[in-house]
Amino acid sequence: MSSPVHRVSLGNTWSGQVHPDIDSERHTQSFDVERLTNILDGGAQNTACRRRVESIIHSDPEFSGQDSYFMTQNERYEAAVRKTFHTQMLIQRWGWSEKESVYAHRALSGDTVLGVHKIFLKALRSLGSEDQIAKWEPLCKTHQIIATYAQTELGHGTYLQGLETEATYDPATQEFVIHSPTITATKWWPGDLGRSATHALVLAQLICSGARRGMHGFIVPIRSLQDHTPLPGITVGDIGPKMNFDQMDNGFLRLDHVRVPRENMLNRFAQVLPDGTYIKLGTEQSNYLSMVVTRVEILLGEILPQLQKACVIAVRYSVIRRQSRLRPSDPEAKILDYQTQQHKLFPPLAMSYAFHFLAVSILEFFQRSYSAILDRDFSLLPELHALSTGAKAMMADFCIQGAEMCLRACGGHGYSKLSGLPSLVTRVLASSIYEGENTVLYLQVARFLVKSYLQAQVSPGSTSQRSLPPSVEYLTAPDLSRCPAQRAADFLCPELYTTAWAHMATRLIKDSVHQLQTLTQSGADQHEAWNQTTVIHLQAAKAHCYYTSVKSFSEALQKLEDEPAIQQVLKRLCHLHALHGILTNSGDFLHDGFLSGAQVDMARTAYLDLLLLIRKDAILLTDAFDFTDQCLHSALGCYDGNVYERLFQWAQKSPTNTQGNPAYEKYIRPLLQSWRSKL
Amino acid sequence: MSSPVHRVSLGNTWSGQVHPDIDSERHTQSFDVERLTNILDGGAQNTACRRRVESIIHSDPEFSGQDSYFMTQNERYEAAVRKTFHTQMLIQRWGWSEKESVYAHRALSGDTVLGVHKIFLKALRSLGSEDQIAKWEPLCKTHQIIATYAQTELGHGTYLQGLETEATYDPATQEFVIHSPTITATKWWPGDLGRSATHALVLAQLICSGARRGMHGFIVPIRSLQDHTPLPGITVGDIGPKMNFDQMDNGFLRLDHVRVPRENMLNRFAQVLPDGTYIKLGTEQSNYLSMVVTRVEILLGEILPQLQKACVIAVRYSVIRRQSRLRPSDPEAKILDYQTQQHKLFPPLAMSYAFHFLAVSILEFFQRSYSAILDRDFSLLPELHALSTGAKAMMADFCIQGAEMCLRACGGHGYSKLSGLPSLVTRVLASSIYEGENTVLYLQVARFLVKSYLQAQVSPGSTSQRSLPPSVEYLTAPDLSRCPAQRAADFLCPELYTTAWAHMATRLIKDSVHQLQTLTQSGADQHEAWNQTTVIHLQAAKAHCYYTSVKSFSEALQKLEDEPAIQQVLKRLCHLHALHGILTNSGDFLHDGFLSGAQVDMARTAYLDLLLLIRKDAILLTDAFDFTDQCLHSALGCYDGNVYERLFQWAQKSPTNTQGNPAYEKYIRPLLQSWRSKL
Repeated sequence: MSSPVHRVSLGNTWSGQVHPDIDSERHTQSFDVERLTNILDGGAQNTACRRRVESIIHSDPEFSGQDSYFMTQNERYEAAVRKTFHTQMLIQRWGWSEKESVYAHRALSGDTVLGVHKIFLKALRSLGSEDQIAKWEPLCKTHQIIATYAQTELGHGTYLQGLETEATYDPATQEFVIHSPTITATKWWPGDLGRSATHALVLAQLICSGARRGMHGFIVPIRSLQDHTPLPGITVGDIGPKMNFDQMDNGFLRLDHVRVPRENMLNRFAQVLPDGTYIKLGTEQSNYLSMVVTRVEILLGEILPQLQKACVIAVRYSVIRRQSRLRPSDPEAKILDYQTQQHKLFPPLAMSYAFHFLAVSILEFFQRSYSAILDRDFSLLPELHALSTGAKAMMADFCIQGAEMCLRACGGHGYSKLSGLPSLVTRVLASSIYEGENTVLYLQVARFLVKSYLQAQVSPGSTSQRSLPPSVEYLTAPDLSRCPAQRAADFLCPELYTTAWAHMATRLIKDSVHQLQTLTQSGADQHEAWNQTTVIHLQAAKAHCYYTSVKSFSEALQKLEDEPAIQQVLKRLCHLHALHGILTNSGDFLHDGFLSGAQVDMARTAYLDLLLLIRKDAILLTDAFDFTDQCLHSALGCYDGNVYERLFQWAQKSPTNTQGNPAYEKYIRPLLQSWRSKL
Repeated sequence: MSSPVHRVSLGNTWSGQVHPDIDSERHTQSFDVERLTNILDGGAQNTACRRRVESIIHSDPEFSGQDSYFMTQNERYEAAVRKTFHTQMLIQRWGWSEKESVYAHRALSGDTVLGVHKIFLKALRSLGSEDQIAKWEPLCKTHQIIATYAQTELGHGTYLQGLETEATYDPATQEFVIHSPTITATKWWPGDLGRSATHALVLAQLICSGARRGMHGFIVPIRSLQDHTPLPGITVGDIGPKMNFDQMDNGFLRLDHVRVPRENMLNRFAQVLPDGTYIKLGTEQSNYLSMVVTRVEILLGEILPQLQKACVIAVRYSVIRRQSRLRPSDPEAKILDYQTQQHKLFPPLAMSYAFHFLAVSILEFFQRSYSAILDRDFSLLPELHALSTGAKAMMADFCIQGAEMCLRACGGHGYSKLSGLPSLVTRVLASSIYEGENTVLYLQVARFLVKSYLQAQVSPGSTSQRSLPPSVEYLTAPDLSRCPAQRAADFLCPELYTTAWAHMATRLIKDSVHQLQTLTQSGADQHEAWNQTTVIHLQAAKAHCYYTSVKSFSEALQKLEDEPAIQQVLKRLCHLHALHGILTNSGDFLHDGFLSGAQVDMARTAYLDLLLLIRKDAILLTDAFDFTDQCLHSALGCYDGNVYERLFQWAQKSPTNTQGNPAYEKYIRPLLQSWRSKL
């Protein structure tokens, strides 16, 4: 189980030995790191498979080369296209499966393009008929076309019905005329659109026989397959610099009466007959299905890894960084030995695990329910939607907060791009916006909670009472009015804190329903009443989401009975996750006297004691994520801990040092001299 | 009082008319915006002076040119040097005062270099003797030299005593030998060091007559005044890419036994005689003085403007952005009409004002006490240190949080660099690290609070009781055990919520002292006990800082009796600031029953009602900051509200659109064709 020292691609002339401060941390073998890695990977076979792919990727000279920290946006895009192209070759050469392709993507830290191609495929499979899938999927998979998914517009994001792009059916030619009537109708943001895509799945308002039929998907060729120039009627380009995702050509698209054949409307859930008759086959919800699919996949594929990497980097740095003394006679202390540093880093570390198990459980639920939904059984969709929506919003929120905390916990070096942390922070920041803006998502969860709460109020035994979806069953569970904890150790109990979270979430949901009803009963119309209580609903939805994360973490631990050492170390993280949430929201637990002030103090004592326990295993817990140095690409978080040597050596390679200083001759010299001459 | 439409430098071909949605917001003349601007500027004369400088800067073609959003780090640096150079010319041509230079800096959004030059000067004035000031100040002011301040090292930041750079006195030549003994002793981060500076004020461990005498400052020439090459023994360069501050050449410096004359040690507070005798003239604290000076200046000069600009951009965008409907029959609503959007933006907006008045009050206190300190009367230093330290940490924390909230509140467009928000967020993020890492600063405040609390406990009338510094007098004030509020409106009272904050802060400080004493009494040594209670001390220090911000805001309002309309609108912001803090920390108020759950709900009602009231004046409140469009440099926050046109036009200018797509010929075309050929 000894882990190898992963080398980094930028030259290393130092000893290459593991830094003694980090090495000593790995001697406490309180659990089997390799086994924990296997659990995270979903089995030892997956770990082996992943490492095989990683070693192919990392040993391939095509994937090294100029350093991304020193590239322009154009260079980043070009490098990403090159890597994507070369990855396709490897996938073919090695016959990699879907899973192996995902591992390749992970090894490249997602620094590739044409990812929206896959979203297009998912949307096609969700919204297209069997005929349409049969036609477009092979074209897409064999890269005869490069496809993107074009939904968001310059003036419209969240509110699908507000999209302005129009698709007007012309029965004379059996074509749809796709058109951007205003500047705000310009498609804006789709990935791969700016410079790469040949086709776009355009979401547009369907107009047929004079009636507006809402949003539908249309496959629109946008660039010539001969020379890649925009087709007639198409204005397309890149939206320019963003906070991150330089490698991605997010684009804009304007359509000027572009015609596509009738068969290009995706018609699993709705059809337009040749004469313009509109036939609806699905519900309003069915359009949202492809968004649910994407939302589930990004949890583990995109959002969580950024937090996990940030934790690896910050924790490793915190054991080699020594600063100040704990006692005047001591040598300078590892900063991870400061309670405040543990308080910064261990809650995000605990979340790195909590969210892993939450995302896995949602993924499993999704896999169970997806085929039923494709068969037009939508009964599980509300639950799936609420779960995936809430998890996305919560994970985005806390992964942003956590990654930023990791950056700040590394002081100045965290702020250097060479630490890798700025790119993790700015990348994960986007997750609060893409695939549904977080506040909007939380409020969708809130509507589900209001509905569920009202359903739970129907008196038991009444015929109108249907059973509640599992994720909100706690709304009908018998409730304690007081927490029974009598000392700090009582808080180290999943049963106790899960119940506490359930109680608190239930109270907030009840309060939010009550506030809503009070307003409507006092004469406000329901929409105004909703808006005037959304801050309260938001709070309730967040509490519910946190509850689900605590619950799924403790349930995952129950399944680890055969791994007592791992179960124990993860249990501490689960405790910490639950208690950190209680302490940062203590007002919500104190509000109705469920917890007393004295109990909050006990929880705090338990929390502070946990920090010390987790401290001992911190490095091992981050090693278990098994990110290679190449994948972390951080001077601060390298496996061997030789941080300062790397920072110094990497900095030398910056264009600020290698390209001379033309500003000296032009400005600094004249500046110095102009004054000197006046003296 | 009509404000002009500020044009932006990137071409604008649209109508140029003010967007009707933003125009209508300015029709509610509930207060005189111009008068509020004057108050923020410290008088109408200052406003006029500032605008005069701004109009000179903004009309000068030297300051337009290539757009910073599209530049590399090297281009940003070169442009900044050019602007700095040209600003120096303007300062000379117009005979600008210190104040006017500050306005010029503001107009250029700090996108200049050689700012550390001024920090050098401040350090020189604080630590240098009159002779030294007389020698170096003119050289610096006339740019015969370019100076930087080199303190932080690769392996050392916060802990001054841990700095490794050595200055060993050699009585034979009457020189100091300055040396970096290890890689971690490399000076790292100083601004202007990487490519510009000719001299550095190097902080180093003084060694004379074999004894280590702690940190002292030494002026060290590092680059030739003839050709700017590094002098013998000097290794100097740029530390490479950072999260922001591309224009700044933060640098590294290694010294290999570099000799400087004895007179180059700054000796206001300590001297080395020719024979090596060491004479101490100041206290340990005196070395910290120049840091206090800088910390006070950055509050208004660097940290707060980033939040204020973010608020301007986000609030303006939120009244032209329409999304979803409040009622099914309505047109899409301005997003600022959503309660959740107000909840996101108005607390940061309130802080933009609260922190302004806090920083002004600290600046005034600083100006009153600075000359006494220079005369070696250190009695006011602990209070000044605690105030400036706490304000820096708190303002950095909340300005980061607020600016990020503003970015996220603008959805996808906020994430585009063209919005201006990413650069504000990444820039202000650094403020939690520079000039003292926030946690370290909070804990310095905590030590001051512990000391003050213990002092307050000495029984009244005892001879050993000295009066407490004003900022902690509340620790001895008579305390209520219960908040008297009986309905929501009772919370709209500065007296009531200031008392509530004082009560809560006092309780947390008392608790932190108690925890510390309990641990030491149970046998822990004092240092270990301190470390094991730092999370608790942190919480107490934060509460104290928030209390000071609430108190200074309400005191500033009392002085606005002659401006009832402005007083009223600012009072709402003050209420909101205080109540938002109470609600986000409700646990700390509920803990001992000072507030009941019912009272927290009343505070929430008062808070939600305030959001609606502030909504009406939101645009005017952001207009009052009077940032020109050039200074905001945001497609989203422009004064005329023509957001979408600007986004579309600015994006066209991105190198991603203007420099072609070499990746197509190299990779995309072969990719498409390689597969096609296989079919």
